[in-house]
Amino acid sequence: MFRTAELNHTLSKEEYAAREQDLRQELLTLQGELREADFPVILVFAGVDGAGKSETVNKLNEWLDTRLLYTRAFDQPSDEEQERPLFWRYWRELPPRGRVGMYLSSWYSPPLLDHVYGKITAEEFDERMSRIRVFEEALAADGALIIKFWMHLSESAQEHRLKKLEKDPLQKWRVTARDWEHWRMYDRFVAAAERTLMHTGTGTAPWKIIEGSDPRYRSIAVATILRDGIRRRLAERRLLHSAVDQADSDTLQAMVESSALPGQPTILSALDLGKALPKKDYAERLLTLQGRLNKLQRKAREKGVSSILVFEGWDAAGKGGAIRRITSAMDARNYQVVQIAKPTDEEAARHYLWRFWRHMSRAGRMTIFDRSWYGRVLVERVEGFARPQEWRRAYGEINDFEEHLAEHGIVLLKFWLHISRDEQEKRFRNRESTPWKAWKLTDEDWRNRERWGDYELAVNDMVEHTSTRLAPWVLVEAEDKYYARAKVLESVCEHLARALK
Amino acid sequence: MFRTAELNHTLSKEEYAAREQDLRQELLTLQGELREADFPVILVFAGVDGAGKSETVNKLNEWLDTRLLYTRAFDQPSDEEQERPLFWRYWRELPPRGRVGMYLSSWYSPPLLDHVYGKITAEEFDERMSRIRVFEEALAADGALIIKFWMHLSESAQEHRLKKLEKDPLQKWRVTARDWEHWRMYDRFVAAAERTLMHTGTGTAPWKIIEGSDPRYRSIAVATILRDGIRRRLAERRLLHSAVDQADSDTLQAMVESSALPGQPTILSALDLGKALPKKDYAERLLTLQGRLNKLQRKAREKGVSSILVFEGWDAAGKGGAIRRITSAMDARNYQVVQIAKPTDEEAARHYLWRFWRHMSRAGRMTIFDRSWYGRVLVERVEGFARPQEWRRAYGEINDFEEHLAEHGIVLLKFWLHISRDEQEKRFRNRESTPWKAWKLTDEDWRNRERWGDYELAVNDMVEHTSTRLAPWVLVEAEDKYYARAKVLESVCEHLARALK
Repeated sequence: MFRTAELNHTLSKEEYAAREQDLRQELLTLQGELREADFPVILVFAGVDGAGKSETVNKLNEWLDTRLLYTRAFDQPSDEEQERPLFWRYWRELPPRGRVGMYLSSWYSPPLLDHVYGKITAEEFDERMSRIRVFEEALAADGALIIKFWMHLSESAQEHRLKKLEKDPLQKWRVTARDWEHWRMYDRFVAAAERTLMHTGTGTAPWKIIEGSDPRYRSIAVATILRDGIRRRLAERRLLHSAVDQADSDTLQAMVESSALPGQPTILSALDLGKALPKKDYAERLLTLQGRLNKLQRKAREKGVSSILVFEGWDAAGKGGAIRRITSAMDARNYQVVQIAKPTDEEAARHYLWRFWRHMSRAGRMTIFDRSWYGRVLVERVEGFARPQEWRRAYGEINDFEEHLAEHGIVLLKFWLHISRDEQEKRFRNRESTPWKAWKLTDEDWRNRERWGDYELAVNDMVEHTSTRLAPWVLVEAEDKYYARAKVLESVCEHLARALK
Repeated sequence: MFRTAELNHTLSKEEYAAREQDLRQELLTLQGELREADFPVILVFAGVDGAGKSETVNKLNEWLDTRLLYTRAFDQPSDEEQERPLFWRYWRELPPRGRVGMYLSSWYSPPLLDHVYGKITAEEFDERMSRIRVFEEALAADGALIIKFWMHLSESAQEHRLKKLEKDPLQKWRVTARDWEHWRMYDRFVAAAERTLMHTGTGTAPWKIIEGSDPRYRSIAVATILRDGIRRRLAERRLLHSAVDQADSDTLQAMVESSALPGQPTILSALDLGKALPKKDYAERLLTLQGRLNKLQRKAREKGVSSILVFEGWDAAGKGGAIRRITSAMDARNYQVVQIAKPTDEEAARHYLWRFWRHMSRAGRMTIFDRSWYGRVLVERVEGFARPQEWRRAYGEINDFEEHLAEHGIVLLKFWLHISRDEQEKRFRNRESTPWKAWKLTDEDWRNRERWGDYELAVNDMVEHTSTRLAPWVLVEAEDKYYARAKVLESVCEHLARALK
């Protein structure tokens, strides 16, 4: 696999100069076009120590407009990072659309080194490669242009290069004992590298192998691949957009998913909305449950067990009220409530999960999402904000995301608060006529109401695809507020208690 | 995940009758359109025993035009199948474009049952799910519409159903001891099912969960999903084709990959074509090597170790001659030579790897491919027979395919026979003027020659992406035929000997 990068590729000063100027100009022009485009560029730099990974990144920082450029190198995970899901450190550093992100010691480094040092088996390594593949696929499906550079040196070239660096007083610091240790493990390192490239070199996130011995050659080679990659992706996106613009509405109509058979029971229609809890019993129950939750949260903090609660439900179903009954039982340092409204500019410029990734809290805390990533398969699906391919793909993406959370030991619980259409109207009317509640009611609420049936089907599909043992949906009969709040609190306590046992 | 399929979905006789007629007509019409389309439909039926998987397949066989329909159920692997790579039995049964293939006890069954019976760990199970995901992705990338039905019954519904079947003298045979055994393991089965659906439910190959208790409901539900799926995919393909038709040539031009930097050494230019072997030495060497190979092939047959040799190279580089030096040393029952020319109609109607999958031989044999799946990234790339996305994606697909072979223990060796452009011309002229060789030379050979530089870059990229420890490329300096033949024979002997140790 690496023989093509042991051919002694070099560029003379003259050849380099002849190419450099044009290339830099083309890259800057393309960066300008990219700025207006709807996809980010993700460049991964990996490879043999001494093959010029960071030097090449520096060179690109010199050539490109750095205002549109992100550069990140991942060191040992910080405390902050260790307390969150494995990929959190990568998720939050992804570039927005229109920008180029360059990554050193990326998501490939830890599994690769773990494998070389024999800390994980071949099966575990393969499984971690699969996870990376799924991660990159999700980004690529969202439009990201991903190019991964493997900077290579032959065993003797690496030795030569490390010795040369050591002799140069200005570069000496670059060579560490670890570099020499890696050099002595060259064969194992290259075998693991090959397995990496084999498993994660896909059509949508290809690896490019670059010979790293000549700085002039490697800079020009990387920059040329980057130029061609951006140029090609811009062309592909233009093609895609013009196709969608030109499609007749019949074609687009046929692409919209039809759901369960009409008239059949859904997961919501099967709920018994008659369930209720008398006010007196509720007051007592609330006190007991809140007391229990208060103890559990302290224990969770102590043990470092995080939890995430997701609240979805009809407008006016009582999400806010239920959430307040939870938070009022807790220490304010132990939780955060995240209100999900329209994405900000910054959020809209990234993968749709990014705005949730950024809210992962540290160990031992509870994060409560008032609306969540499920908007993708609810409002965005029903209102057509997401294209059919996008929301259909989202079920799998959400399951992958939640598996990351579960693997990190996070307790994840999802609530759908269900009321009848009549009850909703009653609550809307009540809001309208109560001065301090009127602001909560918008025209949009009335509009959403008209698509009740579509939402009901969307909820049904959502529960079908995403209710798992690791992250179950709790369907809450919320026609009676007291019953609903008690059921929510009870579920939270139960799941927390089980995780803390 | 399965609660939506425990809602007691039913259709009355009247409702069923009202839907059936239209649905059947629509399906037949769509089958007609599908016949002319450029993609196959792959339907997987999995789920709980007694949930009506095979009955539903029977129903579809009744409703659809069976001439355009494939139905396959996979039992215990036969001897034939066990002697070949794990997925071979599935590969060879895939439907051609324009057809619908229905699969019972599919690729999901073995890992699912192994997991339920505790024969594989959770990590191994996940890894097998990843392999399935990659397999289905490759089919979907090629255009296949994949829909996977999970037919579900609740624990009590399953008990009820099995008891009912047992009471019916005509259906009794359907219920085996194994069914009851599975029923007693219901929880473990459903947990494994959930993990399956979570890991393999993607946007391109989604799972649809169907409640299986009511035969009328499940037939109509499955047929409706099938109808909508085909209709949507037809619309998507129309959109895609019209987009490509309308793209201006500039756009398409930009989408073509540029390769290594021009003027730089390639893996071929770095070879020393001066290597030669005097005729006298050759005769002796040939005798020794052929003797060795003869022993090795007998040992391989005995031990059941299969091997695959791939020959690629310039026209007139001596592939045929080298192959004959191998086969003449072997027992004719132990090898087959597969000449790869233009795909037949039957082959062109399937995934491009299908025409290679079908030639996998039984244990202990050698299969020699004279040209191979690498045509995808050589001639198809250079001549534009494959679109850029197709051949770019092929590197990963080929690596996955070859990993299947390696995992099965097959020795895989790939040769590129290299000659200079001048030497090729000399050999062409010689063929022209030799009556019994003239037929070997076609206009196409002269045409290919004109694109020497493009081919050279394509070979370079191919070796870069697909030369792995499990399946290395051997680059053969073939300017001197004797040297080339000896090197090929030597490599074959060495690799076989190592595998037989």
